[in-house]
Amino acid sequence: MDLRAQIRGWLIEDLGGGPFPFEAARDPWCEAHIKAKSAAVLCGAPYVLTILEETQSLLALGPAKAPEIEWGYEEGARVPAGAAAARARGHAQTLLKAERTLLNFLSRLSEIATHTAEVLGSIGDLPAGFGGILDTRKNTPGLRHFEKYAVRVGGAKNHRLGFFDGDLIKDNDIAAAGGIRPAIDRAWGLRYMAEIQIEVQNMKELEEVIADGRVHMILLDNMDLPALRQAVARARQAKAASKTGKPYSLEASGIGGGDFRAIAQAGVDFISTSRLVRAAPPLDFNMKIVRVG
Amino acid sequence: MDLRAQIRGWLIEDLGGGPFPFEAARDPWCEAHIKAKSAAVLCGAPYVLTILEETQSLLALGPAKAPEIEWGYEEGARVPAGAAAARARGHAQTLLKAERTLLNFLSRLSEIATHTAEVLGSIGDLPAGFGGILDTRKNTPGLRHFEKYAVRVGGAKNHRLGFFDGDLIKDNDIAAAGGIRPAIDRAWGLRYMAEIQIEVQNMKELEEVIADGRVHMILLDNMDLPALRQAVARARQAKAASKTGKPYSLEASGIGGGDFRAIAQAGVDFISTSRLVRAAPPLDFNMKIVRVG
Amino acid sequence: MDLRAQIRGWLIEDLGGGPFPFEAARDPWCEAHIKAKSAAVLCGAPYVLTILEETQSLLALGPAKAPEIEWGYEEGARVPAGAAAARARGHAQTLLKAERTLLNFLSRLSEIATHTAEVLGSIGDLPAGFGGILDTRKNTPGLRHFEKYAVRVGGAKNHRLGFFDGDLIKDNDIAAAGGIRPAIDRAWGLRYMAEIQIEVQNMKELEEVIADGRVHMILLDNMDLPALRQAVARARQAKAASKTGKPYSLEASGIGGGDFRAIAQAGVDFISTSRLVRAAPPLDFNMKIVRVG
Amino acid sequence: MDLRAQIRGWLIEDLGGGPFPFEAARDPWCEAHIKAKSAAVLCGAPYVLTILEETQSLLALGPAKAPEIEWGYEEGARVPAGAAAARARGHAQTLLKAERTLLNFLSRLSEIATHTAEVLGSIGDLPAGFGGILDTRKNTPGLRHFEKYAVRVGGAKNHRLGFFDGDLIKDNDIAAAGGIRPAIDRAWGLRYMAEIQIEVQNMKELEEVIADGRVHMILLDNMDLPALRQAVARARQAKAASKTGKPYSLEASGIGGGDFRAIAQAGVDFISTSRLVRAAPPLDFNMKIVRVG
Amino acid sequence: MDLRAQIRGWLIEDLGGGPFPFEAARDPWCEAHIKAKSAAVLCGAPYVLTILEETQSLLALGPAKAPEIEWGYEEGARVPAGAAAARARGHAQTLLKAERTLLNFLSRLSEIATHTAEVLGSIGDLPAGFGGILDTRKNTPGLRHFEKYAVRVGGAKNHRLGFFDGDLIKDNDIAAAGGIRPAIDRAWGLRYMAEIQIEVQNMKELEEVIADGRVHMILLDNMDLPALRQAVARARQAKAASKTGKPYSLEASGIGGGDFRAIAQAGVDFISTSRLVRAAPPLDFNMKIVRVG
Amino acid sequence: MDLRAQIRGWLIEDLGGGPFPFEAARDPWCEAHIKAKSAAVLCGAPYVLTILEETQSLLALGPAKAPEIEWGYEEGARVPAGAAAARARGHAQTLLKAERTLLNFLSRLSEIATHTAEVLGSIGDLPAGFGGILDTRKNTPGLRHFEKYAVRVGGAKNHRLGFFDGDLIKDNDIAAAGGIRPAIDRAWGLRYMAEIQIEVQNMKELEEVIADGRVHMILLDNMDLPALRQAVARARQAKAASKTGKPYSLEASGIGGGDFRAIAQAGVDFISTSRLVRAAPPLDFNMKIVRVG
Repeated sequence: MDLRAQIRGWLIEDLGGGPFPFEAARDPWCEAHIKAKSAAVLCGAPYVLTILEETQSLLALGPAKAPEIEWGYEEGARVPAGAAAARARGHAQTLLKAERTLLNFLSRLSEIATHTAEVLGSIGDLPAGFGGILDTRKNTPGLRHFEKYAVRVGGAKNHRLGFFDGDLIKDNDIAAAGGIRPAIDRAWGLRYMAEIQIEVQNMKELEEVIADGRVHMILLDNMDLPALRQAVARARQAKAASKTGKPYSLEASGIGGGDFRAIAQAGVDFISTSRLVRAAPPLDFNMKIVRVG
Repeated sequence: MDLRAQIRGWLIEDLGGGPFPFEAARDPWCEAHIKAKSAAVLCGAPYVLTILEETQSLLALGPAKAPEIEWGYEEGARVPAGAAAARARGHAQTLLKAERTLLNFLSRLSEIATHTAEVLGSIGDLPAGFGGILDTRKNTPGLRHFEKYAVRVGGAKNHRLGFFDGDLIKDNDIAAAGGIRPAIDRAWGLRYMAEIQIEVQNMKELEEVIADGRVHMILLDNMDLPALRQAVARARQAKAASKTGKPYSLEASGIGGGDFRAIAQAGVDFISTSRLVRAAPPLDFNMKIVRVG
Repeated sequence: MDLRAQIRGWLIEDLGGGPFPFEAARDPWCEAHIKAKSAAVLCGAPYVLTILEETQSLLALGPAKAPEIEWGYEEGARVPAGAAAARARGHAQTLLKAERTLLNFLSRLSEIATHTAEVLGSIGDLPAGFGGILDTRKNTPGLRHFEKYAVRVGGAKNHRLGFFDGDLIKDNDIAAAGGIRPAIDRAWGLRYMAEIQIEVQNMKELEEVIADGRVHMILLDNMDLPALRQAVARARQAKAASKTGKPYSLEASGIGGGDFRAIAQAGVDFISTSRLVRAAPPLDFNMKIVRVG
Repeated sequence: MDLRAQIRGWLIEDLGGGPFPFEAARDPWCEAHIKAKSAAVLCGAPYVLTILEETQSLLALGPAKAPEIEWGYEEGARVPAGAAAARARGHAQTLLKAERTLLNFLSRLSEIATHTAEVLGSIGDLPAGFGGILDTRKNTPGLRHFEKYAVRVGGAKNHRLGFFDGDLIKDNDIAAAGGIRPAIDRAWGLRYMAEIQIEVQNMKELEEVIADGRVHMILLDNMDLPALRQAVARARQAKAASKTGKPYSLEASGIGGGDFRAIAQAGVDFISTSRLVRAAPPLDFNMKIVRVG
Repeated sequence: MDLRAQIRGWLIEDLGGGPFPFEAARDPWCEAHIKAKSAAVLCGAPYVLTILEETQSLLALGPAKAPEIEWGYEEGARVPAGAAAARARGHAQTLLKAERTLLNFLSRLSEIATHTAEVLGSIGDLPAGFGGILDTRKNTPGLRHFEKYAVRVGGAKNHRLGFFDGDLIKDNDIAAAGGIRPAIDRAWGLRYMAEIQIEVQNMKELEEVIADGRVHMILLDNMDLPALRQAVARARQAKAASKTGKPYSLEASGIGGGDFRAIAQAGVDFISTSRLVRAAPPLDFNMKIVRVG
Repeated sequence: MDLRAQIRGWLIEDLGGGPFPFEAARDPWCEAHIKAKSAAVLCGAPYVLTILEETQSLLALGPAKAPEIEWGYEEGARVPAGAAAARARGHAQTLLKAERTLLNFLSRLSEIATHTAEVLGSIGDLPAGFGGILDTRKNTPGLRHFEKYAVRVGGAKNHRLGFFDGDLIKDNDIAAAGGIRPAIDRAWGLRYMAEIQIEVQNMKELEEVIADGRVHMILLDNMDLPALRQAVARARQAKAASKTGKPYSLEASGIGGGDFRAIAQAGVDFISTSRLVRAAPPLDFNMKIVRVG
C-alpha cells in the first residue's frame, strides 16, 4: 500500500482539482487543538502528521515551514472527552485544508479502537487458554489495513488480512471445487507459512475434515451453543490433524449477538466477529484554531 | 475520480500481489445469488458488474468469458430480506475473488441508503417549503463520493461535496482570517456558480452577517430551538442579503439527536446531519454459488 | 489534482526514462537567471521551486543540497522585458534538466495572465455594477486548473471550473433531455451550493426560462447587440426567478471579436470569452546560468 | 506515456470526482456531429473514439452499448468550415460528458496542424536539398508528444522529442561544463543511435566545434542572414566532422519572424521554430446532437 | 498488484512516450510464431495475450480487431527447441511493438521454470516425507510474484512471498530486538494464519528456541552436514514446540552449491535456495512474422 | 520513469499492504554494514539512500530521524569480498524493512557491472578504431534503464534504450513492410537526431541496403566469421551511404559464444551481445546490523 498516495487520494477527494498558490509569508502560522467530543481510545495518531505534510505538499506552499504536531496522549491511550489529544501547528491553509480529512480518519480509527476495547471490557474474563476475539474481512473498501490496525489498537486480534496471508476454504470454495476433499486438494501445499483453515457448518462436515487429516484450523460457522459444544468435544477427542500432527485450532464465527463468554466457555480457541468494525458507534474528533500568528 | 483504478485498489487490498494465472477452460462457470440478509434499500448495483470485470482483468483469465449480472431489483428499490437481489454468472475464480470486495461495497452503500430512507420515514411530513435533510462532509476517507451518492439514493440531499463546489466559512476560517468580514472578503468573488455559506453560532454573529449584506446562505450551528427560532425570525425579517438581493437560505446543523420536525417547523430551509452516513447500522449482503458448470 | 505527480509527468515527458545517477559532490552548484523576453505579468512563480524539487528527486542526486529560488517580482506583478524575474540556485543537473519544463510552464501561465491583463486594460472602464469578464472551459487538456488560475492572476474571473462546481444547461443538454423544462427537471435540486445556469439563444427560449421560474442564471449565447439589449430588458423587467426570488444574473457569451464595452453597456452582468486563454500570444521566458561553482 | 491514463486525467479534470451511475436503458442513444467552425487540417481523430470509450468507462454505464464514430475525413485532410468531420453515436451521458474534453483536444491538435500547413504553404518552394522546417521543445506541459504529432500531420518535422532521443549541447550546458570541448567530452560516446548537436552563436564558437572534429550537427542560433551565410560557407568548406567523416548538418534557430526562404537559401539544412506550435491561432470544433433515440 | 498497470509500465519502458496513431485499416494483419530457441518449460503463457491487448490499447489503434493467440503447449509443458510454442495474430504494429517485452517476459519466466525443473531432476529421489525445495526472497525487484510463480510452474515450492504472509525472525531482527526471546516476543500473537519461523546458526541458538517453546518452524542457516545432523537430531528428540504442540518443521538454508540429497537425507523437512531463480541460465524465445495480410 | 514511484512499487511487493505505525522514539537507531559476499564492481549505490528514504516514508515513522549512508567505495569501483561497501544508519524498522529490496537491487546491478567488466577484461586489447561492446534490449521487464546503466558502469556501451532513441529495422519489420526498401521508406525522415539501423543476414540483403543508399548503420546478424569478413569488405569498399555521405557503421550481433576479438578483428565497428546482462552470474550483497542504540 502506498500510504502517501492513498492519503493524497483522500485529500484530493475533498480539495478537488486546482492549484492553490499561497504565499506562505502571508498565510499566518496557527495552532489548533484536536479534541475527541467523547471519551475515546486514540487511534491513528501516527498518521496525522503525514496528512498535514501531504496537504502542505499539495498546496505548493513554496518554502513554507513544516507543520508540527504534539500529542498529549499515546496511541491506544484513553483520551477523556474534550481533552486536547493533540496540538497541531502550521500555516493556516495547511490546517484548514487538512482538517476534515484528518478528523474523518482519526474518528473512524478511534471509533473502532474504542468500540473494540468496550466489547472486550464488557465480556470480562475469558477462560484460560482462550486465544482471543478476532475481526473479519468485512471492512470498508480502501480502509482494510487501517481498520484492522484499529482492531489491534483496541485490544483484539486480526483474522487474516486478505487472500494473501491465509487460505480460508469457505462454503463457496467448497461448492466451486465440488466438495471438501477437492477443495483442500486445491489449496494444499501451495503455501509455506500461511496456514489453511476450513469452514464447517455441521458435524458431518467436521467429520469429513477430521477424516481427511490435513487441515487443523477449523471454523465452526453459524452453530448454536449445543452444536458448538458437540463439535469442540469431537475435535478435542481427535486432538490433532492426523497428517500434520498439529493440534486442532477451533474458531467460532457467525455468532451475531451471541454471548461471547458462553461461546468461549464452550471450548473454542477463537471467536471472530465483524461487529468490532461494523457496529462501532460514531465518535467525533474536532479541531479548533486557538492561536493565530 | 478514476473509478476503475479505485476499484482495482480495493481488490488488491484483498487479493495482495501475485499473478493468478488460471486456465479459463478448466475453471468452471458458476452462478451465484447475491442476497441482503435483512430488508434493504439497494444501493451500489451499477458498480457490481464493474467490480467483477476488474477482478477478471486482474486475474488475467486469458480469453475468458465476460462475467454477467442480472438484477432482480432496481437501484433504490427495497429488497426483502433473503431475496436474491442479483444473479451473477462468471468463472469460479472471478466470483470467489470478487466476493468480499463486492459485498463490502454493496453493504456499505445499501446500509447508508437504507438508514437514510428510515430516518426520512421516521420524521414524517415536514412543513411545505422545507428544503430537505442534508448530509455533511463527515465521510469515510476514500468513499466520500459513494457515500454521498447513497444518501441521494436513500432520498436525502447532499450538502457540498468538498471544497470545490461551495465555500463554507466556518469557525476556524473566521478565526484564521480574523473575523467575519475579513473571512467573507477572502472568499467573495472567487467563484461564479458555487455559492458561499457562513456559519454563525449566535445572534451577534448573525447580525454581523446581515450587516455585511453579501452572504445569503447561513448555517445556524449548534443552536437550541429557542435560539433557532429567534435567528430565523431575524433573517426572515431581513428577507434577503442586501448586496445581492438573494433571499436568505437558512440551515440548521449540529442538532445531534434533536427533533427534526420541530427544527424544520422552526422555519429553517434545511437541516444537515452526519448521522445519515455515520450512524447507519450494519447491513449485510452475502453471495452463494448456486450452480457450477 | 496530485500537483507533484502531474509535475513529475511533465518532467518525464522531457527526460524520458532512465536512472540519472550523478555524484552531487562533482556536479557544480550554479546560479541561473530566469528572464521574460518581453514584458510580462508574472504567473506560475509559486510552482517553480516545486518543479526544481521534483527534478532533483527524479535525478536521485543522493544527499544533494536542495535547490533555492529568489523572486525579484511577486506573482501577478509586471516584469519588464529582460529583467531577472528570479535567481535560481542548484546543482547543474537539476537546473539543466528542469529548464525546459519550467520555462514552458512559466511561459504558458504568464502569457495567459499577460494577455488577460491586456484585454482588460484595452476595454477600459466598464459600467458600475458590471460583474466581470469570465473565461470558459476551453482549455488545454491537462492544464485546466492552471490556466484558470492564470486568468485570475491576470485580473479576470473564472466561470465554473468543470461539471463539479456548477450545472450549465447547454443546447446539447436541452436536446438530449427533450426541451428546456425537462432539462431543468433533471438538474433541479441535485446541488446545494453549486448553481444552475441555462443557455438561451433567442427570446422564445428566454421566455420559457422565465416562465419556468426556477433558474436565475441565464447565458445569452451568440446574440448580436440588439438581441442582447432586448433580452436584458425582458429579464430586468421580470427582476427575479419567480420560484426562488433570486434576481436574474445575465451573461453574454459567443461574442467572438465583439466590443466588450458595448456589450457590457447593454446591461449584462458578465461576459465570458475563451479568448483570454486561447488567443494569448506566445510569450517566452528563458534561463541563463550566470555563475558556476 | 500511458495514453488512456492521461485521457482519464483530462476527463477527471472536467468531471471532478463522484460516481455517475446512470441506467443505460433510460439514457437515450444519440447521434452528434463534430464540426470545425473554420477550415481545418484535421488532427487527433484517431484518439476521439478512445476519449469516448474512457468517458463511458468512468461513468460506469453498466452493460451499455459501446460508442461509435464515423469520420468523414481522414487524419490530415482539410475539413471545410462547418462540414461534419465526424458522426459520433453513443449514450447521451457519454457524449455530453466527453464533449468539452474531446473538442479541446481536437481543436488544439488541429490548430497546430492547420497552422503548420499554412506556414509551410506561405513559404513556397524551398531550395532542393533543404531538409525541412522543424519544431522545438517549447510545448505545453503534458502535451509534448501530441503537439509534436500535430506538427508532423501538418507537414513539418520534429526536432528531438526530449532529452532521450538526442543530445543538444546548448549555451547553459557549455557554461556548466566550462567550455565547448568539456561539454562535448561529457556527451561523447554515451549514445549509440541518438546523435549530438551543438549550439553556436558566432564564428569563434563554430571554429572551436570544427577544430574539435567530433560533432557534425550544428545549431546556428540567433544569427542574422550575413552571419548565417558566413557560418554556412565555413562549414561547407570543412565538409565533414574530421573525426567521424559525417558531413556537417546545419540548422538555423532563433529566427523569430525571419524570412524562411531567405534563411533556407543561405544554405542551412534545417530551420527550427517554436512558432508552429506556439503561434497557432485558435481554431474551434463544436459538437451538436442531431438525433435522440 | 495491478497486473495491467505493471504490464503497461514495461511497454512504456520500451516504447517511450508519444502517440502512435495508425489507421488499423492500413496496418496489415499478421501471423507470427513464438518459439523457444532451446528446449524450455513454458512459463508465462497466460499473460502473453494480456501484453498484446495492452500494447494495442496504448497504440490507440481505433476500431481495430483484437489480437489473438493460440498455444501449441500448455503452461508448464516442455516445448522442444524451435517448436512454435504459440501462433499470435494481430495488426502489424501490435505485434512489432509488443515483441521485445513479450519475449523478455516469456524468456525470464521460462528460464526460471526450466532451471527449477532441471535442478529438481538432477537431484533425483528424495527421502519419503521430505517437504520440498523452496525458493527465497532474492528476486528481481518488480518481478517477485512472477518469479515465484515460475518456481511453482517448474515444480518447486515458494517460501513466503514477502513480509505479509509469514514472519521470519532473522539475525538482524534478533540483533535489533536484543536477543532471541525479545525477538519472538515482538512477533508472537500478531498473526492468525501466517506462521513464525526463526533462523538459528548453531546449537546454542537452537536450544534457546526449544527452551522458549513457542516457535516450531526453524531455519538452520549456513550449517555444514554434521552440524545439520546434530540440529535435526536435537529437534526430533524434542518433537514439538512445547507451548503449541506443533511438531518442529526444519529448513536448511545457505547451502550454496551443497548436495541437496545429502542435506535432505540429514532429516530436514525443507531446503531453500536462491539458485532456482538467481542461477537460471539465459533461455531465449523469439518471434517471427510468418504471414502478412 | 518516476524513480520513486518505481522504488515504492518494489518495497510494497515485499511489505504488502498495511499501516506500519511505530513510535520512532522506541525504535532503536542502528548501524548496519552492507557487504558484497564476493568481489564486485559496485553499481546502484546512488539509489540506496533513496530506497531507505522511501521505506521510511511508507512506514510513517512520524517525526523520525532521516536515514544516512556512507559509502566506502565509489560507484563503479571494485569492492573486495567481505569489505563493508557502505555503512547505513537508521531506525531499526527502516533498515529491516528496506533490507531485502535494497540488497536485491544492489546485487542485480552489481552483478551486471561486474560481469560486464569481466567480459571486457577477458577480451583484452581490441583493434584501434573498434567502437565498443554493446548491450541489447533483452532486459528484465521493469529494469531496462537500470540494467543498461549497469552495463555502462561495467565499462561497455548501450545500444538504443528503446523504440524512442533509434529505429532498428529488423527482420519482422521488413516482413511486415514487404521488403527492405518499403521498410526504409516507412522509417525515413521521421527522426531528426535518432538514427536508423537496418539488420541484414546475408550479402544479398547487404547489397540491397547499399543500393538504396540511405541507411549507414548496418547490423550484420547471425553471420559466421567468413561471412562477416566478406560483408565488412563490401561495406568498406562502398565507404559511405551514397545519399547521406555518412560512412558505414557496422555492428555484429547474434554472436552467441563467439570470439569477440576475432569478430572485432574482422573489421566491424561494434559488437552487441545480450550476454552482458543475461548471463551475469549471481552476486550477493548482504547487510548486517552492527550496532543498536
